[in-house]
Amino acid sequence: MTVLSDKLVYRFGDGRADGSADMKNLLGGKGANLAEMSRLGLPVPPGFTITTEVCSWYNANGKTYPEGLREEVEAALKEVGEKAGGVFGDPENPLLVSVRSGARVSMPGMMDTVLNLGLNDETVKGLMKRTDDERFAYDSYRRFIQMYGDVVLGVEHHLFEDILEDFKQSKGVELDTELDAADWRDIIGRYKELVEEETGKPFPQDVHEQLWGAITAVFESWNSPRAITYRRLHDIPGDWGTAVNVQSMVFGNMGDDSATGVAFTRNPSTGERKIYGEFLVNAQGEDVVAGIRTPQPLTEEARREAGNPLPSLESLMPEVFRELVDIFHKLEAHYRDMQDVEFTIQNGKLWILQTRAGKRTAKAALKIAVDMVDEGLITREEAVLRIEPSALDQLLHPTIDPAAERHVLATGLPASPGAASGEIVFDSDEAERLNGLGHKVILVRVETSPEDIHGMHAAQGILTTRGGMTSHAAVVARGMGTPCVSGAGTISVDYKAGTMTAGGGVLKAGDWITIDGSTGEVLKGRVPMVQPELSGDFATLMEWADSVRRMKVRTNADTPHDAKTAREFGAEGIGLCRTEHMFFEADRIMAVRQMILAETEEERRRALDRLLPMQRNDFIGIFTEMAGLPVTIRLLDPPLHEFLPQEEADIAELAEVMGVDTDKVRRRVDELHEFNPMLGHRGVRLGITYPEIPEMQARAILEAAIEVKHRSGEAPLVEIMVPLVLARKELDIVAERIHAVAEQVMNEAGERIDYMVGTMIELPRAALMANRIAETAQFFSFGTNDLTQTALGISRDDAAKFLGEYISRGIFETDPFVSIDAEGVGQLVRMGAERGRATREGIKLGVCGEHGGDPASIDFFEDVGLDYVSCSPFRVPIARLAAAQATLRRRAS
Amino acid sequence: MTVLSDKLVYRFGDGRADGSADMKNLLGGKGANLAEMSRLGLPVPPGFTITTEVCSWYNANGKTYPEGLREEVEAALKEVGEKAGGVFGDPENPLLVSVRSGARVSMPGMMDTVLNLGLNDETVKGLMKRTDDERFAYDSYRRFIQMYGDVVLGVEHHLFEDILEDFKQSKGVELDTELDAADWRDIIGRYKELVEEETGKPFPQDVHEQLWGAITAVFESWNSPRAITYRRLHDIPGDWGTAVNVQSMVFGNMGDDSATGVAFTRNPSTGERKIYGEFLVNAQGEDVVAGIRTPQPLTEEARREAGNPLPSLESLMPEVFRELVDIFHKLEAHYRDMQDVEFTIQNGKLWILQTRAGKRTAKAALKIAVDMVDEGLITREEAVLRIEPSALDQLLHPTIDPAAERHVLATGLPASPGAASGEIVFDSDEAERLNGLGHKVILVRVETSPEDIHGMHAAQGILTTRGGMTSHAAVVARGMGTPCVSGAGTISVDYKAGTMTAGGGVLKAGDWITIDGSTGEVLKGRVPMVQPELSGDFATLMEWADSVRRMKVRTNADTPHDAKTAREFGAEGIGLCRTEHMFFEADRIMAVRQMILAETEEERRRALDRLLPMQRNDFIGIFTEMAGLPVTIRLLDPPLHEFLPQEEADIAELAEVMGVDTDKVRRRVDELHEFNPMLGHRGVRLGITYPEIPEMQARAILEAAIEVKHRSGEAPLVEIMVPLVLARKELDIVAERIHAVAEQVMNEAGERIDYMVGTMIELPRAALMANRIAETAQFFSFGTNDLTQTALGISRDDAAKFLGEYISRGIFETDPFVSIDAEGVGQLVRMGAERGRATREGIKLGVCGEHGGDPASIDFFEDVGLDYVSCSPFRVPIARLAAAQATLRRRAS
Repeated sequence: MTVLSDKLVYRFGDGRADGSADMKNLLGGKGANLAEMSRLGLPVPPGFTITTEVCSWYNANGKTYPEGLREEVEAALKEVGEKAGGVFGDPENPLLVSVRSGARVSMPGMMDTVLNLGLNDETVKGLMKRTDDERFAYDSYRRFIQMYGDVVLGVEHHLFEDILEDFKQSKGVELDTELDAADWRDIIGRYKELVEEETGKPFPQDVHEQLWGAITAVFESWNSPRAITYRRLHDIPGDWGTAVNVQSMVFGNMGDDSATGVAFTRNPSTGERKIYGEFLVNAQGEDVVAGIRTPQPLTEEARREAGNPLPSLESLMPEVFRELVDIFHKLEAHYRDMQDVEFTIQNGKLWILQTRAGKRTAKAALKIAVDMVDEGLITREEAVLRIEPSALDQLLHPTIDPAAERHVLATGLPASPGAASGEIVFDSDEAERLNGLGHKVILVRVETSPEDIHGMHAAQGILTTRGGMTSHAAVVARGMGTPCVSGAGTISVDYKAGTMTAGGGVLKAGDWITIDGSTGEVLKGRVPMVQPELSGDFATLMEWADSVRRMKVRTNADTPHDAKTAREFGAEGIGLCRTEHMFFEADRIMAVRQMILAETEEERRRALDRLLPMQRNDFIGIFTEMAGLPVTIRLLDPPLHEFLPQEEADIAELAEVMGVDTDKVRRRVDELHEFNPMLGHRGVRLGITYPEIPEMQARAILEAAIEVKHRSGEAPLVEIMVPLVLARKELDIVAERIHAVAEQVMNEAGERIDYMVGTMIELPRAALMANRIAETAQFFSFGTNDLTQTALGISRDDAAKFLGEYISRGIFETDPFVSIDAEGVGQLVRMGAERGRATREGIKLGVCGEHGGDPASIDFFEDVGLDYVSCSPFRVPIARLAAAQATLRRRAS
Repeated sequence: MTVLSDKLVYRFGDGRADGSADMKNLLGGKGANLAEMSRLGLPVPPGFTITTEVCSWYNANGKTYPEGLREEVEAALKEVGEKAGGVFGDPENPLLVSVRSGARVSMPGMMDTVLNLGLNDETVKGLMKRTDDERFAYDSYRRFIQMYGDVVLGVEHHLFEDILEDFKQSKGVELDTELDAADWRDIIGRYKELVEEETGKPFPQDVHEQLWGAITAVFESWNSPRAITYRRLHDIPGDWGTAVNVQSMVFGNMGDDSATGVAFTRNPSTGERKIYGEFLVNAQGEDVVAGIRTPQPLTEEARREAGNPLPSLESLMPEVFRELVDIFHKLEAHYRDMQDVEFTIQNGKLWILQTRAGKRTAKAALKIAVDMVDEGLITREEAVLRIEPSALDQLLHPTIDPAAERHVLATGLPASPGAASGEIVFDSDEAERLNGLGHKVILVRVETSPEDIHGMHAAQGILTTRGGMTSHAAVVARGMGTPCVSGAGTISVDYKAGTMTAGGGVLKAGDWITIDGSTGEVLKGRVPMVQPELSGDFATLMEWADSVRRMKVRTNADTPHDAKTAREFGAEGIGLCRTEHMFFEADRIMAVRQMILAETEEERRRALDRLLPMQRNDFIGIFTEMAGLPVTIRLLDPPLHEFLPQEEADIAELAEVMGVDTDKVRRRVDELHEFNPMLGHRGVRLGITYPEIPEMQARAILEAAIEVKHRSGEAPLVEIMVPLVLARKELDIVAERIHAVAEQVMNEAGERIDYMVGTMIELPRAALMANRIAETAQFFSFGTNDLTQTALGISRDDAAKFLGEYISRGIFETDPFVSIDAEGVGQLVRMGAERGRATREGIKLGVCGEHGGDPASIDFFEDVGLDYVSCSPFRVPIARLAAAQATLRRRAS
């Protein structure tokens, strides 16, 4: 439902404005800033903004305009003319305007600018008269026809270019500047013919028709395929809409005392406090972008550093330059952020066309934030809020050199950030072998399974052709901090031939490729990298973040190595230690399989006895790294069939190695087959039917904790976590066993250890029954991956087929496996937390799903009041910052 | 937590009692009735009851007794002695007692009765003196040792029998009656030796030790494996516990003026209002049960009818008989139900030992209920509440002749009620072929898939060796009303050899078997059946039920045939018409497969065009049967891979028939493979990605509705249901398409039809977001099957591996796929209903999961206030009755 405000058009210019900077939602970023600058008294060409609500209304009402809009536009246009000294469509003294789109956030794919609107065969003469420059007037008119024809009327750009090129060729000249007024008039004639041929209608001479054509084109461009794609990729809702900015023209191409330029108030790559920008004399904005002429630096210093022979603005127009620098200071002081400014100088008079917060690298963002605190411009809290947490990824992983050439073979999902190059390997054993010989390899698989863990460890990067952002490959790679591109569906792999087809060519094992896990790109060959560096600004900002943060940040880590990495990144404990990954290690998978193939409890216990010392050693390693911090260990979770081979040949091999009958193995594999393993015999259900498994695990955990206490004098804070619980009774049964084993172990050792037994809340029923479950559970950890899968009824492994369409069509605003579905799944988390607390006051609450490392989700978890989030080691800094921001946002509101 | 009341022991006898009939939960059924009869002034031997709370306390507190219990028992025992004229353990005038278990409901597997407790080497002499009958006294003592030894001390029964047999053989006698007092004394000695040998301790002479041994044995028997199994099968919670009844002995074996017997106040098979029972002169209760002597009929009429030469009680002891008949009338008038009574006559004095509501067949239950209304004993409402809804199954399906011999090959799950015999067939095509030739067949499969539908239709019954109560076979069979046994895991099928191994033997295709879908039994050969008959009492009772029922009862039906059956059973519309079953029909599966293999939307539309007329015809048939009633049609729900073959050979065959490349088919099959198809690309997700599918279906539905309106003048009330919705936006997109198609169809036909577009609430998120979804949805139907699967995270197809253990260990009270998990899943249903109504007042709410036919679930749905339930045709009468009872229970409370 589009609700329309009374006011549809907001005016600005001449030191006043209807709107202001805080009306971005209504006026778009550009419109709000024009209004704000106008209020600040900056020299802004007068104009007006049609609100984003009109766009939404237009799209919701069969592409029609609300009543009253035309009148409001007319009135505003009249006022602009008065301020600028002209009348729209007046043949004597015509007002010319630009028309631009402007959404809340800057968004490629939207309509390009149309300049010089208001020119026609009559008004061009008025312009001529007013400027006393016939060539300028015709040049302006032909530019307008070209832009309008392309952008509004859909006549292909190159057709105009062809006419111009042919004309120049026929005249034997090379540069536009060599054409005179008559030439342009001639070209205008040809342009108009072209438009009539292509559109079947003459080029509009009615200036109002021109204006409404451009306005409509802006609104239509909101739903251009490119805009839609951009929105989907950047999580921008389709109902925001765009505003339209209509503004009187100023000209940077009215001679050598005119110019146009762009500037950042600080360096956007490094963050240094130096003006950074360029300009062109006697040019319009598009000339700067077009790159035909080489722009000149703004400052003398920059000119010297670049060894540029062209004069700087500072030397060329020192007064205008001083005025510009003053304005930059004014803007930074006002917006308290680095600005990206567009300006034009018309006959020596400076006009500011646009200002906005400047885009910057993560490194620059950190430096600018820290510097601005030092400068007293912003507070530490504001500095913390200024950094996009996910941008920190850039600082933590190698990235592809922005200067490098990219030969993109395919694009998949950006599953685990960072870039990596290596030789293609299709097999995990081979990956391990080659890695052992010092090769760098990229493991390429259709999809990975737990049996590929050793190959994934050995690889520099992982590429799969199937599976989403939360596929096995993606989850494990993120945990390891290894770059990964998943679900690159256009690549087809032929294991037998040892080849892959991508981008129309065939690559074979041993060929080099590069993957960019931050963008999803798969590149040919070995592409140069930029290594990450953590600056002092990073440390300073994280310290500020930590000082305000309420929630703790833990890590998901299954190995001492991961635990160590995470501690270095600031993790305050382990929120999820998955024990099943340990079961896949080469030295123990056989014992695991013996356990699974066992036909009696006794046989099973014998196999478990062999696993016990290995599990104990795993935990000793992890506890040692996390001395004094809480460590949550999840008991065995996956269905048992994951530990057995599925292919006939592998089954036969296993049978031979184990010295049992092939049929027996196959039968057990068949018995363990499940239609929906995600909803199958796993988690606590294994602990109920095979109580000897949690018993072994509890013993390994407790013995390890005691051992570490003896060695280091400091015991870990052990939290034993039972997965997939749906009823208190389930937890009772397993918890009773754990406590019994714990008592036994502690009595044997003559040493007591503090430990807790808790549960994951990862099924809707568990959230609903949290009050009962908390009677037994000493802590909760929300498993939001599985909770999302079950609440939404979507298997993340199978979602790829429709999830993209669900997001592009706005059913989900974002991928619910990346950012928690706060309004749906979030209700269950909130319910679980509230009910858990109602039964057990102060019960420790955390989250260990993938969402634990996602800033938007972290904000939600702060709102629910969880005690900690847990995420993969490389996301720990991101989570620390996001948690701090969440705290600050709560304070503010 | 066991909360203990102050009073642990309740006394009765002598026309007074501490307890009464409404204290069944505390005193057990037997104890409450003994108290009640005592209050009524009936001749009940005095005694007392130890409450069920003591049992729970005993089990919860390490098998110990609460403080004060012993004192209360002592005091009660003293009072019993005073009333009965004896002292417990007194060598001169010993009080003898019986000890019996007694739970809330009668429950096999509990401890057997111990009689004559209080006898030892001393008191036996007192008994001798009091009765002046040495033989009787020793016989009583040896009976006591035998029972106590067996039941309390665990000495195997046959060892006592062996001693007795050896003794008789050595004496050369055959009957117990030929043994004299000295013989019994001799045998007592040998019995005591046996007990000491077996238990390592002498037979207890301390009468208090005897008593506490028996009490403990009762409490222990609550957790005997048999009792646990029975509880699991009958949904009896483990924490109810049993009471213990201690009662002074009366003897039916004190000579020819003594007797013992049992009686039903009406005929429990037919319901006729005639006393039905038997007795034995000079015997104890166990002698009637043992079946060594032939019991005699109670009434002269029964004696005549049976042609029994033995005299009736009526003729033998006319005064006692008259007293008994009076008591029967008194009991029926008091309990207002048919009674099952145990009595004993001791030296001409009548004692009533027990009364309880008599078990009866469904037929008898109906007759008794209807008769009692006629007799003015109960109201119509009470009559409606008297019938166990699920017992109606007996009346609707053929059952195995109770007199027939049963050779049980295996026992699976009672998946779809009724019995059937036929030749074994392992293949659905073959089943169809043989059925066409007039053979009766039982389709035997490891499991069935939608491709077996034609074979299931052709079969008399279905037997699977895998899958649970809600497996494909079970669900489809119940829908068809075809008997089915599922998950008979001990049967192994060899498709290749065309044989199955069961019960140690091998059966081959063509051999006859019989399945009993009400018990799960698989029987060898062709077992005689009893055909169902619906009496006038059935019609009367259903009419009374319908007159009070609030909820409507609809049916799940996919064919005109099912729709017709269901209407005959009283269905008031269709709550779920699954369209995918239609897709499997032989004449259309090819078009369906072409649609799935289509590579462009256009190709897909061509295939759908071929399906359209067939779907339309389906709906015409169904609408015709349901003229004037609401019909809810669910759009295509299952993932597409279900329509494609999975085996290599079938894929090749399909490719050949379709004239496409095998690789293409295989590739598509691979593409469609899902890890968790239950959570995959199905339901509304298909409608979003392939909008042409719902468009075709909407067209078929609307065209059919218009056609039926034209033909019959009465249009069906069409409800188009979108499955698996989780967000309003999803429904918006599909509903918009449906409305567009509907407008088009109605314009084409120049005819308007009322129809609604609604959704299933079958995902937790849908329940949580019901307020939003109801903005678009015009009705909700709760799909509690999938809602249970997702809320609990349990795939019903995979649950068999642990669900049994979950129920037996009390994690679930009942199978949540049979009776809705009211405290968990029920919260979501309640939430969905409340939130849906909050947005759209009076929104139509129904349920179409399997729970729609389950009485306990129906009671819950009444509580939530749903408008209707929908169930398979054969469960419609059950649902009607259950819904009526639910209404009445709400009225009462």
